[in-house]
Amino acid sequence: MVLTAGGLGARAEARCRELSRPPYSEEADNLTRRYLTAAHRATLDRIAGWMRDAGMSVREDETASLVGRLEGAKAGAPALVFGSHIDSVRDGGCYDGMLGVLLSLACVEAISAAGRKLPFAIEVVGFGDEEGSRFQASMNASRAFAGRLDAASALAAKDRDGATLAEALTAFGFDPKRIADAKRTKGSVLAFIEAHIEQGPALEAQHKALGIVTSIAGQWRLKARFAGQAGHAGTTPMHLRRDALSAAAEVMLAAERIATEGPPDLVATVGQVAVKPGAPNVIPGQAEITIDVRAGTDAVRDAGLAKIEAAIAEVALQRGVGVEVERVQNLPATQMDARLLGLLGQAAKQCGYDAPQMVSGASHDAMMVVDLAPAAMLFIRCAGGISHNPAESVTPEDCEAALETLLAFVDLLAAEHAQ
Amino acid sequence: MVLTAGGLGARAEARCRELSRPPYSEEADNLTRRYLTAAHRATLDRIAGWMRDAGMSVREDETASLVGRLEGAKAGAPALVFGSHIDSVRDGGCYDGMLGVLLSLACVEAISAAGRKLPFAIEVVGFGDEEGSRFQASMNASRAFAGRLDAASALAAKDRDGATLAEALTAFGFDPKRIADAKRTKGSVLAFIEAHIEQGPALEAQHKALGIVTSIAGQWRLKARFAGQAGHAGTTPMHLRRDALSAAAEVMLAAERIATEGPPDLVATVGQVAVKPGAPNVIPGQAEITIDVRAGTDAVRDAGLAKIEAAIAEVALQRGVGVEVERVQNLPATQMDARLLGLLGQAAKQCGYDAPQMVSGASHDAMMVVDLAPAAMLFIRCAGGISHNPAESVTPEDCEAALETLLAFVDLLAAEHAQ
Repeated sequence: MVLTAGGLGARAEARCRELSRPPYSEEADNLTRRYLTAAHRATLDRIAGWMRDAGMSVREDETASLVGRLEGAKAGAPALVFGSHIDSVRDGGCYDGMLGVLLSLACVEAISAAGRKLPFAIEVVGFGDEEGSRFQASMNASRAFAGRLDAASALAAKDRDGATLAEALTAFGFDPKRIADAKRTKGSVLAFIEAHIEQGPALEAQHKALGIVTSIAGQWRLKARFAGQAGHAGTTPMHLRRDALSAAAEVMLAAERIATEGPPDLVATVGQVAVKPGAPNVIPGQAEITIDVRAGTDAVRDAGLAKIEAAIAEVALQRGVGVEVERVQNLPATQMDARLLGLLGQAAKQCGYDAPQMVSGASHDAMMVVDLAPAAMLFIRCAGGISHNPAESVTPEDCEAALETLLAFVDLLAAEHAQ
Repeated sequence: MVLTAGGLGARAEARCRELSRPPYSEEADNLTRRYLTAAHRATLDRIAGWMRDAGMSVREDETASLVGRLEGAKAGAPALVFGSHIDSVRDGGCYDGMLGVLLSLACVEAISAAGRKLPFAIEVVGFGDEEGSRFQASMNASRAFAGRLDAASALAAKDRDGATLAEALTAFGFDPKRIADAKRTKGSVLAFIEAHIEQGPALEAQHKALGIVTSIAGQWRLKARFAGQAGHAGTTPMHLRRDALSAAAEVMLAAERIATEGPPDLVATVGQVAVKPGAPNVIPGQAEITIDVRAGTDAVRDAGLAKIEAAIAEVALQRGVGVEVERVQNLPATQMDARLLGLLGQAAKQCGYDAPQMVSGASHDAMMVVDLAPAAMLFIRCAGGISHNPAESVTPEDCEAALETLLAFVDLLAAEHAQ
């Protein structure tokens, strides 16, 4: 029997809104759902109910991630796992993470409604802690799921009230000593698919509902510190100045130009700047900026970095200003599985959607899973690129499109496995 | 009899150093001499002693400025007044202000030593409060001298311990109600000459000991606030960004270029920058900068301002970023007296010094006096342009050169008056 979305995608969108207020939020007027809070518990229970209604068995793993499972034709078979996260940032949007979980659930609802027995199991995972908004460490749940968690260090992390993760897990009814048992065995996961809102403006700008993520961007973060000569703004002629902020400004524009002229997935951002002495009538003697450089491949990222570092050295030389560059963060790019993203693209096309391939500039749980199983991501358009904000917005129509595509993907994967 | 410097200029330099430690400083290890402190009193008494030794009568005016007077051929004649300030900033340098006062005293010492009777009196004024380092209002003493003080407002100003200027004057043995009596009558001041260290690097860069100040720079101070669109540093492609900090950086470089390509006295400085949200992984949605624009004439200053404001508007338009420009300060330029600066230049030349004409980018007491009497300034080279800092430095040789020039100036003025 054919799988049809039939309004289940739109219902998933509505459910995201339902889950954005108490008891599913810690706050009355906004969505704040941190890991291992009462709001987390209420949300687990609500989704578990929907999962059971869809014919799934439900459990919580050792990190309190929700795992619903629908057996296929043969019980105990490896699973196609759909997953994303159910926690939020403080004062966040209701679709970030949650939409992927509820669209995955909608998939199962459609499969159950059609009475289809697939050649694999389907699981839906709702990770409890992706944002790190309570314990300042992100993707702990998917990290544990993939067997990549440093348990001792993770359990010792404290929230702002001084409670450790170990204490919070215990209070939530879990045994922290067993946290590493959340790890899945390699053979048990056939593939991992994460649907997620884009959190950027690219799909909207291209008038596309969906995008296929080819990779999650690699990232360099630099600090560049310029040392010039402070001086009186009135008494120092222009040609005798060594203005640290002017050097920094030139580098800001160079980084912007290098990224703009580079491959479309290369981005560079100066988000912080600090100036000393920092008085209106004093030429800046010191200026420090952060530079965030990302691209879909490490090759593009590293080439961008090299150009930016060369520009920094050139500006400092030309201006007679000292500079010190510190590489403070290095996150390599994560490639999505080529076969899976090909199938996702084919599925979208079958459903009549032109889903462009794109790089995710933000991090996602799928990053953690790649060593465990082939992984891919489907992006859903959001309004204005706004995320981590109550103004986060998606349309029911785009959610239907995403669900149709996920169902077509399931069909394609099932056809492959039937052969 | 010919007036000769004969080491008196070098002695003035040495005396500046002597006055840089207790009891002439409030601090043991640096120079801090604020208005109406015990250090101020000790300094007044020490210089008064040197003045009397040079044959001067000494008084303190109603603002506690020190006034030494040497009568000329005819008692009670209008005076050529030399003046600068004897207060310092916190942790300041020992030449700022004081060198001008002690070089002026050295002039009188040379005149007395030569037994010369001039066709005018000579006065040396040591203003007690130019820096405003105690009451946050600068040039109060010369303001009162010139009859430009708003007494009620000045007397109500408080220091950081909560004492008003009125209370501090009373504690220093003065009657605050009489503060306006410090005003000099127009006819009593023939001319006003201020010698001062340059506080900038221009003379050193030109290998010149002395400079003739043609004007004290006019100043505009702007705040420019750019409003773009905050966004995720990873998910927003370059061509969809409206980065407020990039717009600000482009304006910083435009202001620098406009000043560099403009007349030599035009300077522009961005000394402060503030960015929101201000996180390394967020594209800046807002950026605010200060822009300080100065020039020797209001025409140059205003033309520079117009170009910078046009550049701001152009950058904002090109980038689709909002901008708001606020003019927070407008200080018109002060022209020095053409005849006096001609005589000073002639005097320097006679002594063998090529003293370039230049604009003072910093404010000085001479600014206040221009409505009372013709005024001019002689600048003395300082090392590295450093001032308001213990590293402030001048050479005894340059002080001799300055004294020779001042004495030649006195001769030239005397010759004019003898005709």
